[in-house]
Formats: sequence, C-alpha cells, structure tokens
Amino acid sequence: MPGPLLASMSGTRPTYAEWYVTRVPEGDTLERMVCGECGTIHYQNPRVVVGSIPVWEDRILLCRRAIEPRLGLWTLPAGFLENGETVEQGALRETLEEANARVDLGDLYTMISLLHVHQVYMMYRAELCDVDFGPGPESLEVRLFDESEIPWETLAFRTITRTLRCWFLDRKQGSFRFRSSALDRPRRAARAIPA
Amino acid sequence: MPGPLLASMSGTRPTYAEWYVTRVPEGDTLERMVCGECGTIHYQNPRVVVGSIPVWEDRILLCRRAIEPRLGLWTLPAGFLENGETVEQGALRETLEEANARVDLGDLYTMISLLHVHQVYMMYRAELCDVDFGPGPESLEVRLFDESEIPWETLAFRTITRTLRCWFLDRKQGSFRFRSSALDRPRRAARAIPA
Repeated sequence: MPGPLLASMSGTRPTYAEWYVTRVPEGDTLERMVCGECGTIHYQNPRVVVGSIPVWEDRILLCRRAIEPRLGLWTLPAGFLENGETVEQGALRETLEEANARVDLGDLYTMISLLHVHQVYMMYRAELCDVDFGPGPESLEVRLFDESEIPWETLAFRTITRTLRCWFLDRKQGSFRFRSSALDRPRRAARAIPA
Repeated sequence: MPGPLLASMSGTRPTYAEWYVTRVPEGDTLERMVCGECGTIHYQNPRVVVGSIPVWEDRILLCRRAIEPRLGLWTLPAGFLENGETVEQGALRETLEEANARVDLGDLYTMISLLHVHQVYMMYRAELCDVDFGPGPESLEVRLFDESEIPWETLAFRTITRTLRCWFLDRKQGSFRFRSSALDRPRRAARAIPA
C-alpha cells in the first residue's frame, strides 16, 4: 500500500487509501493501518451484526432485500450494531427498520463468527407483538413463512440458512439452546483461486 | 471537525483528524466519518472484547495489568477480538497472551454492552489445563485467587467485577447461566458534567 511519501509524489491530494501506511505499531503484534503523518492507528476489528428471528404462531418473518449485497434474496432482519446501543437494542432496531416489526426479544440463539468478512452474527429468538409489519427502506417485501414455505434456495446469507435450520431442528426437538459456530470463505470462492 | 478545505488552508499536510468530514452518507441515517477526498466511509462500530474466567479447583486466575488503562489493577485475561479469528479463538489467544495459560473453554458466560466506550465484552467459562502460567508482556503478575482473596477494590474494570460477582453467585447456587447486560458511563464521570 502506498504511504504518504508516494502520495505526495503523485502531485494530487492523497486519498484515504494513499494516506495510510501498514505497519506493526510499538507494543503490538499485528500490522495496523497507521496515519503516516500523525500516527493515529486505525484498528480494524470484526463488526457485530445483530438481528432477530421474529415468530408469529408457527411462522417466521423474512425480508426480501432491496439493497446489495444479495438484492432480491430473503433474510432475517439484521444489521450492524451501532455505537451507543446494546446488543439487544441493536437487534430490536434492525427488526423495526427492516420489517417495521415490533418484537419481544428472547434469548440469544446463534452466534456465528464470519472469518472472511470479519463479522460476528448474533441472532435472537423473538416473538412478534402483532402482524402490523411491512418493508422498510432496505426491504422489497416482508412476509411470514411456515417451515414448508421457507425459500431455502434464495436465502441471502449462510448465517441465515444455518440459523433457520437450527431453529426448525430445535423446535422439532422441543428445546432451543444457544449455538456458537464459525463460517469461513464459501467453497465456490475458494475454487476460483488457482491451486 | 475540520474538513479537507480547512486542512489545506493550514499550509501543512493534513492529519487523519483533519482529513475526514462528518456527514450522513446517502442511504444512511447516522453521521459517519467520510474521507473528504475519495468518499471512503470509515464506519465506527462497537468492538468485541473477548476473554475467559480460568478456574483451577476452587480458584480463579487474575492478571495484574502492566499497561494503561488501569495499570497495576487486576483483571481477567481479555482483549480485542481480531479479524480472522472466531470469538472462541480470540478468548483462547488472549488467555495465552496475557497469562501464558492454556484453558479448555466452556460456555459463553457474560455478554456486557459497554455503551460509553463502544465495546461488547464476551467472557467464557474456562478450566485451566495446568498451573504452568505466568505474566505475558501486558501483565505484571498472574495468580490464582479463592473467593475470599479476590481484590474487589483493585479490579480494573466494572465488566470484570460484574462477571466475577455473577460467577461466585452462580457457583454458590450450583448452576451457571448465560447473562447479558449493559453498562453506561460510570457515575463519577456523569457527576462531573454540570447540570
């Protein structure tokens, strides 16, 4: 990555990517992005994605995505945890924003470390307070699905597929338990890299 | 916060803090740090702190901090989750780095949203594999404490106090359960702000 010296040689104002240098700060063990001028360290750590599994009777609420990535595919309401909110507040906010849905939040249900995209998914069990829901600005469509109707082939993310599979399995067995797991780069992408 | 224009007027190279502007990007609802030149959005989200509660027989391992903040105070081994590791791998790594201790990780035990510093603590129950531990570079001292010895007055963080109080309570009651909670700005700091 070009550092400030290279950036200044280009004759134009440096952009973010040009301005930072990659190095191991004193007392650290990993390379970080460091401002070449003032030394500010820009730590990059995994982000938390929070969401819910809203249930009404035997059915689960899913949202069809109006935005990239995976525009047009189905997902549970979820999004990035923001500064200043608790994990639970974030899950409630995302459920309201994406599906205009109010839920009573239950237990944390799945936690999935997504290694290749530096995210930690945390999905909560939830009961819809009413059926007065509908698409927020990031959804094309929001509806309830029973198990036989779940669009397994057009789910947006593997985290959602895994969470829903666990949920239906646990419901069949009559007991829900917290599950922590991990996902790495999808197999398709790995195949695309020449050996 | 000064933007690129102001930075260029200063006659010197802008630093990180001068280079970014604070604005709501298109399609977003919150203010973000945006590179005034290239538009790169620098999202700032809560960071995950992972750690463990290492137990040997009836005693708990604590580390005395060799670094700021809270240099000289006692803590459980914990630190920021890094990109490319699972939550569990992060907890094991921090336990090894800070206490040279190998543990068998158990269940996720406490999750604490720290609102004012934008962190989510996740502490795991853990069993020490052996007593061959000792201070890593960020610790002055590492030792085992039974309940009567816990240095409650010189613990480094409220997350650690809360986690330990819950742990001893649950042990007394004979059953450990996952606990999610939140902490906001400490009362002392709140008092310092004039009404």
